[in-house]
Amino acid sequence: MVHRNGNFAKFKANYLFVDIANRRKAFCDANPTAKLISLGIGDTTEPLPSPIIDGFIRKAQDLSTAERYSGYPDYNGSAKLRQLIADTFYSNLEIHPDEIFISDGSKPDLARIQLLFGPQTTIAVQDPVYPAYVDGAVISGKAGDYNESEGRYSSIVYMSCTPENGFFPDLSKVKRTHLIYFCSPNNPTGMAATKSQLEELVRFAENNNSFIIFDAAYSQFTGSPPSFILRVSEYIQDPDVPHSIYSIEGSKRVAFETQSFSKLIGFTGVRLGWTVCPRKLEYEGGTPVWDDWARIMGTCFNGPSNLAEEGGIATLSPEGLRGMREMTSFYLENATIIREAMERLGFSCYGGRNSPYIWVRIPGKDSWAAFQELLEKAHVVTTPGVGFGREGAGFIRISGFAHRQDVLEAVARITKALSN
Amino acid sequence: MVHRNGNFAKFKANYLFVDIANRRKAFCDANPTAKLISLGIGDTTEPLPSPIIDGFIRKAQDLSTAERYSGYPDYNGSAKLRQLIADTFYSNLEIHPDEIFISDGSKPDLARIQLLFGPQTTIAVQDPVYPAYVDGAVISGKAGDYNESEGRYSSIVYMSCTPENGFFPDLSKVKRTHLIYFCSPNNPTGMAATKSQLEELVRFAENNNSFIIFDAAYSQFTGSPPSFILRVSEYIQDPDVPHSIYSIEGSKRVAFETQSFSKLIGFTGVRLGWTVCPRKLEYEGGTPVWDDWARIMGTCFNGPSNLAEEGGIATLSPEGLRGMREMTSFYLENATIIREAMERLGFSCYGGRNSPYIWVRIPGKDSWAAFQELLEKAHVVTTPGVGFGREGAGFIRISGFAHRQDVLEAVARITKALSN
Repeated sequence: MVHRNGNFAKFKANYLFVDIANRRKAFCDANPTAKLISLGIGDTTEPLPSPIIDGFIRKAQDLSTAERYSGYPDYNGSAKLRQLIADTFYSNLEIHPDEIFISDGSKPDLARIQLLFGPQTTIAVQDPVYPAYVDGAVISGKAGDYNESEGRYSSIVYMSCTPENGFFPDLSKVKRTHLIYFCSPNNPTGMAATKSQLEELVRFAENNNSFIIFDAAYSQFTGSPPSFILRVSEYIQDPDVPHSIYSIEGSKRVAFETQSFSKLIGFTGVRLGWTVCPRKLEYEGGTPVWDDWARIMGTCFNGPSNLAEEGGIATLSPEGLRGMREMTSFYLENATIIREAMERLGFSCYGGRNSPYIWVRIPGKDSWAAFQELLEKAHVVTTPGVGFGREGAGFIRISGFAHRQDVLEAVARITKALSN
Repeated sequence: MVHRNGNFAKFKANYLFVDIANRRKAFCDANPTAKLISLGIGDTTEPLPSPIIDGFIRKAQDLSTAERYSGYPDYNGSAKLRQLIADTFYSNLEIHPDEIFISDGSKPDLARIQLLFGPQTTIAVQDPVYPAYVDGAVISGKAGDYNESEGRYSSIVYMSCTPENGFFPDLSKVKRTHLIYFCSPNNPTGMAATKSQLEELVRFAENNNSFIIFDAAYSQFTGSPPSFILRVSEYIQDPDVPHSIYSIEGSKRVAFETQSFSKLIGFTGVRLGWTVCPRKLEYEGGTPVWDDWARIMGTCFNGPSNLAEEGGIATLSPEGLRGMREMTSFYLENATIIREAMERLGFSCYGGRNSPYIWVRIPGKDSWAAFQELLEKAHVVTTPGVGFGREGAGFIRISGFAHRQDVLEAVARITKALSN
């Protein structure tokens, strides 16, 4: 018989967003007239700027002509888009276009990165943490067993990120692992590491001969945009937060960086992202990781959609970049509205300045109770913090990805419900 | 230090299409005025029909409006497209839409299927064989070591497919494996298994408790199209060749099927495909494979591009299907032109009837010599058969994916060169 890959049996029973969907459905079944507002899942809601739509249409029309039809994409993405990404996001950081691999998004890239490393590879993650890193480690046999009472996998090193440590782990107490997943600005806490913190992280990786997998999916919400971009939201952003791990000296020898058009322009459904694999990144013995990464991208992927790529190229035009900046500013303003309302209600809030997410401490309640209270009293869906890890207990994540009127209405309902 | 995943070191030194590109470049450098025609790589060349272009544009315009913008796709693809695929390609075969998982293409799906099975899993492949199955097995540690003199990996079972056995393996001599990769119509040989052959394959899998991974990427080139489709090419197709493994009784308990819009309509660059994972497919012990496959698609993938999906939906409209049938007929007519020309020159030819590929035996020459001769004398690029496996020695693959005038010109040049 064909045996099941034993790793799958190690998954904990339920998946956060499935649990939320079940509770939401139970509530709607019992309250069929309630109009829920979702500030739960971090999904973009605003229409795409016209230069980007024009890019899609231009490519579609190309595909209708014998002269401009094109077949298989370059497995690693179009040279034009790779050059534009290098120029836009890595100017002065000396990232070569051939170190940039275009993909269908960060989540698939994070899964493919797992293939680079065997099951003996150890990994560290922030806690709270975006679930995909751990799930990918479970599938590839790197996570160990799930301990229900601990709420953790036995072979994973969890780096606590809490208000007490300023959401940056005390690296002097972190056990050495081969890989360190690090997400900044963080999903779910919304907190972004400063330049000096990232320097500490890179030194830690250098001293331990570890690799960092730096998830920069929210980097365009931070405060040091390329100078030609409109700085609408300057007032709420922190200029000391780097966009890229490659701002840090020495990082090219220890770090991958994954990035995505999903949140920066609203391509969650269009699917386009990239991963930087520097030529200087080497395994023990000096083999460049780049060689294997290129092989994986050629074997396990076949290039991004040419329509999505053309949208990416249009995004990086001057008009597209202006649209991008307006879009991230819009979501940041949503986050500010939510954060200020929650602070007025007396809650300690984190994030929401360099990130669309607000991480709210709810004293004396567990996350699911807080989630349930907001669902029942305000008809607002949030995300219980404990779903992101043990250190998320007592928090909820509120997302700024929503239409403005929904944010205003949700905030009004929450204020009314919790003021009574 | 971080160690390299030892599996990567097991790859044989060169990759077929890289070798071809290098020889091509060397020839062009030495003959800068030569106008090469490529009948090598199987990449689509013809513009997409207008209903499909309209689908892309409609979706692009939707993304520009607040009312119709949409974010994350369903990880498993849109319900509408899954239903259309079930109705179009699996009518009367009782495949439920929720057994159809939409993806960015067959190659990425084939790599994700590897994740379902641990490194102890044994696999069988046809020889000659599309390289991606073996490459995925190498990365995931199932292939063993590469034996340079054998031209084969030690842990893979190779099922010879030659003119002598009618390109269907003698299953009585094939060692039992957990997984059997089977591609029909076959890439590279162009030969399609008949219904009785597929029945034999399914009985073999049942008796051995094996799973079949049935690659049906070229199934729309075969002779039993859904009855509502225009049958332009009836005369060259064999009606005894099933479109789907699920035509065979009992196959839902033993087989996956991967499929793609790449060759059936020309989405090699747009990226859209699907895999069928039947609910009845179970591991030892009765766990449904479906559960783990859904988990993989949610963890390692994030859904197909919404633009590509809308093109897929448009393809499955009555006008789109007519365009699809015209497209496959066009490429089949190219294949017929090539096959007839090569037969006139006295070569034994296979395929090209239910497939865009023609598999040509070149007596007394090895594949690379034949490749080189056609390159130098006719300035035509083909693919040396040995690149697909040991049993491909002495053959070349000629692809019907080309503009008509290029096919005619290539055939004229080859005829002239080889008649002298």
